[in-house]
Amino acid sequence: MEELFNKVLQVNVRCRDCEERRANIRVTIDLQLTTSPIHKRDLLVRLTDDADPYFLFNLSISEEDFQSLKVQQGLLIDFASFPQKFIDLLNLCYSEQESDHPRFLLQLSGQNSVLEGPTSFSVVETNAFKHLNHLSLRLTQGSDKEVKDYLAVCIASLKAERQALEAKLKKTEEDLSRQLSYAQQ
Amino acid sequence: MEELFNKVLQVNVRCRDCEERRANIRVTIDLQLTTSPIHKRDLLVRLTDDADPYFLFNLSISEEDFQSLKVQQGLLIDFASFPQKFIDLLNLCYSEQESDHPRFLLQLSGQNSVLEGPTSFSVVETNAFKHLNHLSLRLTQGSDKEVKDYLAVCIASLKAERQALEAKLKKTEEDLSRQLSYAQQ
Repeated sequence: MEELFNKVLQVNVRCRDCEERRANIRVTIDLQLTTSPIHKRDLLVRLTDDADPYFLFNLSISEEDFQSLKVQQGLLIDFASFPQKFIDLLNLCYSEQESDHPRFLLQLSGQNSVLEGPTSFSVVETNAFKHLNHLSLRLTQGSDKEVKDYLAVCIASLKAERQALEAKLKKTEEDLSRQLSYAQQ
Repeated sequence: MEELFNKVLQVNVRCRDCEERRANIRVTIDLQLTTSPIHKRDLLVRLTDDADPYFLFNLSISEEDFQSLKVQQGLLIDFASFPQKFIDLLNLCYSEQESDHPRFLLQLSGQNSVLEGPTSFSVVETNAFKHLNHLSLRLTQGSDKEVKDYLAVCIASLKAERQALEAKLKKTEEDLSRQLSYAQQ
């Protein structure tokens, strides 16, 4: 598994019967290589919210999935170039997210009153004339098992951070106490 | 929800086709009071493993459940006295867990080769003559949703710990730097 992208981006979240809100969503893109039983590459797109442990939307795009996506959305690139092109679009949104009128923005829209079931994640350009949809991916909300697995990974990394902080605190105390007792001599 | 007990205890884990092992299991007992729609009290017993985020066994005992448990296991106490009696037994096991031949010990046994499905959690006394079963509760393994909810709570507390450590580190650095610069003057 190779991580290609991992950033917190501003996303406009829209769902039926609820007001549009702006949320900070972590977007992760991983490339998963499987060699057995057959050689295949899958692009995994994941949306999470550092402030909400239950927020998880997923999409896995295989080379076959990409072919239908390509036809459906009129893309002119192949699977190998797709990740970088997608990342370029995300970075465009990232570079404009502090602006009051961003030209590129990200949209997450669900069909239900809460974000459940299929949800589309889109890169939208707004010009003087209209909204242009550059890419729209259909994500599904993480199942209980997927959220569980994601949270287990979060816990492992939080525990590692805690351990590192404890070690740094101990070292800082020791270093400064040593310097202090030396200075006081 | 009132927490009555929360300790890491040594438990002998046995399952079919696997060697018995000794594990450090966190045992939590909570009393849950519900007033609406009807007034009821439930005792929630939970086993978790700080080292394994997926390990979760649960049991909820209502007053009605307790009546059948009482008959089944020949208990002589009522529901109100049960939690304290159970805690006394757990503390007995806790006080003996460093001993080579503990008189009281905890056992978790599953029927399958891995701990899945119904699992019994027992307080067993071993005397010269036999093993005496003081109490045996039938726990079920946490569902994906239950594990997910449990992990979300763990994450919140790990994040709070991280924040406290970061604050402490910052304060330690500031305090000692101030003392150091004062001593060096």
